[in-house]
Amino acid sequence: MKMKPAVTTRTINTIVSAVALLALGASCTTAQAARDPLPSWNEGPAKQAIVEFVHATTAKSSSKFVPPAERIATFDNDGTLWCEQPLYSQFLFAFDRVKALAPQHPEWKEKEPFASILKGDPKEAIAGGVRAMLEIVMATHAGMTAEDFEQTVKDWLATARHPKFKRPYTECVYQPMLELLGYLRANGFKTFIVSGGGIDFMRPWTEKVYGIPPEQVIGSSIKTRCEMRDGKPVLVRLPEMNFIDDKENKPVGIDAHIGRRPIAAFGNSDGDREMLEYTQGGGGARLMMLVHHDDAAREFAYGADSKIGTFSDALTAEAKTNGWTVISMKDDWKRMFPFAP
Amino acid sequence: MKMKPAVTTRTINTIVSAVALLALGASCTTAQAARDPLPSWNEGPAKQAIVEFVHATTAKSSSKFVPPAERIATFDNDGTLWCEQPLYSQFLFAFDRVKALAPQHPEWKEKEPFASILKGDPKEAIAGGVRAMLEIVMATHAGMTAEDFEQTVKDWLATARHPKFKRPYTECVYQPMLELLGYLRANGFKTFIVSGGGIDFMRPWTEKVYGIPPEQVIGSSIKTRCEMRDGKPVLVRLPEMNFIDDKENKPVGIDAHIGRRPIAAFGNSDGDREMLEYTQGGGGARLMMLVHHDDAAREFAYGADSKIGTFSDALTAEAKTNGWTVISMKDDWKRMFPFAP
Repeated sequence: MKMKPAVTTRTINTIVSAVALLALGASCTTAQAARDPLPSWNEGPAKQAIVEFVHATTAKSSSKFVPPAERIATFDNDGTLWCEQPLYSQFLFAFDRVKALAPQHPEWKEKEPFASILKGDPKEAIAGGVRAMLEIVMATHAGMTAEDFEQTVKDWLATARHPKFKRPYTECVYQPMLELLGYLRANGFKTFIVSGGGIDFMRPWTEKVYGIPPEQVIGSSIKTRCEMRDGKPVLVRLPEMNFIDDKENKPVGIDAHIGRRPIAAFGNSDGDREMLEYTQGGGGARLMMLVHHDDAAREFAYGADSKIGTFSDALTAEAKTNGWTVISMKDDWKRMFPFAP
Repeated sequence: MKMKPAVTTRTINTIVSAVALLALGASCTTAQAARDPLPSWNEGPAKQAIVEFVHATTAKSSSKFVPPAERIATFDNDGTLWCEQPLYSQFLFAFDRVKALAPQHPEWKEKEPFASILKGDPKEAIAGGVRAMLEIVMATHAGMTAEDFEQTVKDWLATARHPKFKRPYTECVYQPMLELLGYLRANGFKTFIVSGGGIDFMRPWTEKVYGIPPEQVIGSSIKTRCEMRDGKPVLVRLPEMNFIDDKENKPVGIDAHIGRRPIAAFGNSDGDREMLEYTQGGGGARLMMLVHHDDAAREFAYGADSKIGTFSDALTAEAKTNGWTVISMKDDWKRMFPFAP
């Protein structure tokens, strides 16, 4: 029987190196770097702006390097991370709550905007604009504990379906934005939602859907009070607005919750203008982007004249003047939703 | 010349295993586990309660295991993480601001509580209790941008010295609590400050001193407004209270900022009672602890009769009834401050 050749020191070194690389995950990292972190983005100015910004702020050798703790990125939600047409899903949730609670509120039959909702005419109900709409929402969101409200949201999301896509709302999220969130986090960014939507309507699902934990969600809110119920302290939701996290209030909400000026901000409508301006107002590298809904075939096309997600001509002009990147969903996105490749 | 013995497969396996362990950091982990993570804590019920709680909530095999995302720990600041006697440092800061701003406010000479401060009698000025004291603070904290206020705080902290310890206030922090913060974070906990103190008075230094970033600081606040100044959006501080983060408002602040019920909470006074009750109100393993200032030699001894950091007999009784752990600074802490071994 022939002897196997003796294992040489060089062989050992090779094995040792290979094992060390595997154990350190270095080989994985190399493989990941070679893979495109934004596969659902077409090559173009939008994708390029993202990649260049991340490189500029994270490469140690970069003159625009930003320490990880200061890598704050804020995202609007409705129309930026998930579909907001034909109507904000929170309003559809609120309408369903109005219907469910109507027996306890006989006066709603005669009182607007509730009467229109009960008659099945939500367009009439929401004619009062964002603030009026938020008021409707809040009127149906109070009088229960925080835990009970969370369960109500989860129950509704489990059965409600988007009218166009026939999918749960939490699946009608933009695949390119999910990749962007992941790409930023992989590069040491902390991602926050800064939305006009209700903070407690978003928190029950943002961690699972976006990887954004409740403490990184900022939104509109009603007041709460701590009360003892069955010998245990609970938070009771009061029928009183606390904060409307829209337009000029977005920087206020950002400062209250984060205490730092973001270095990147993403929106899709006039309601995000001040957040982008505030982000740009700091020094160093900044990235401001607006998602433009111009893809009627795969999603919806709307803008200047839309009541939901208004993208006015003034915003278009300001984006141009300030060097903000407008993302064309039609041209920049290879894929729209996780379910629609 | 005698041949070296051929390297056997077994030898290679041993080398490979050793390298893999080193590369994975397993040997470091073993060394760390052997080292005491809380060296400034004496052995006793307080230290034992901490270690057992961390083990119960983080060991995969534990029936009380808590997923990392839900490992929320909240800490009061004044008297829990840093020294609050002989007076909250934020009030001393405010008094210094009153003196600095007095030339612009001739009316303060006749108007309490400003008159007492200008006469050098802060005890008279703070006689109105926490809410009145916060009002004083806020009256001197408004009318500037968020960035300017941050700089004012930093400038003051750079020169102000604690009257007893002759050190910067940011050095008068409790070494055992620094170790506790680090120990919890090393075990996947997210640590938050929940203080009656001003959120913007704490945020400029908590990251450096406690490893707690601004977005994990909750406190009392005044209102702000986003304004354009020199063509850039800034947050201007308004002379109007927004939120007083004390007593029954602590759970409200926790819910607004974190959106989850903590599983561990640390305080030192009656102002923390509701935070501890709220923490305990959830299911599963919970840890509630109160720092008791009983060490006049190394720090201060105060409690039931103190206006600052009141630890009433009712709180002592409730701690006993509810199974909260009272930390004796004298008995449980081997070392008080980083500068005083």
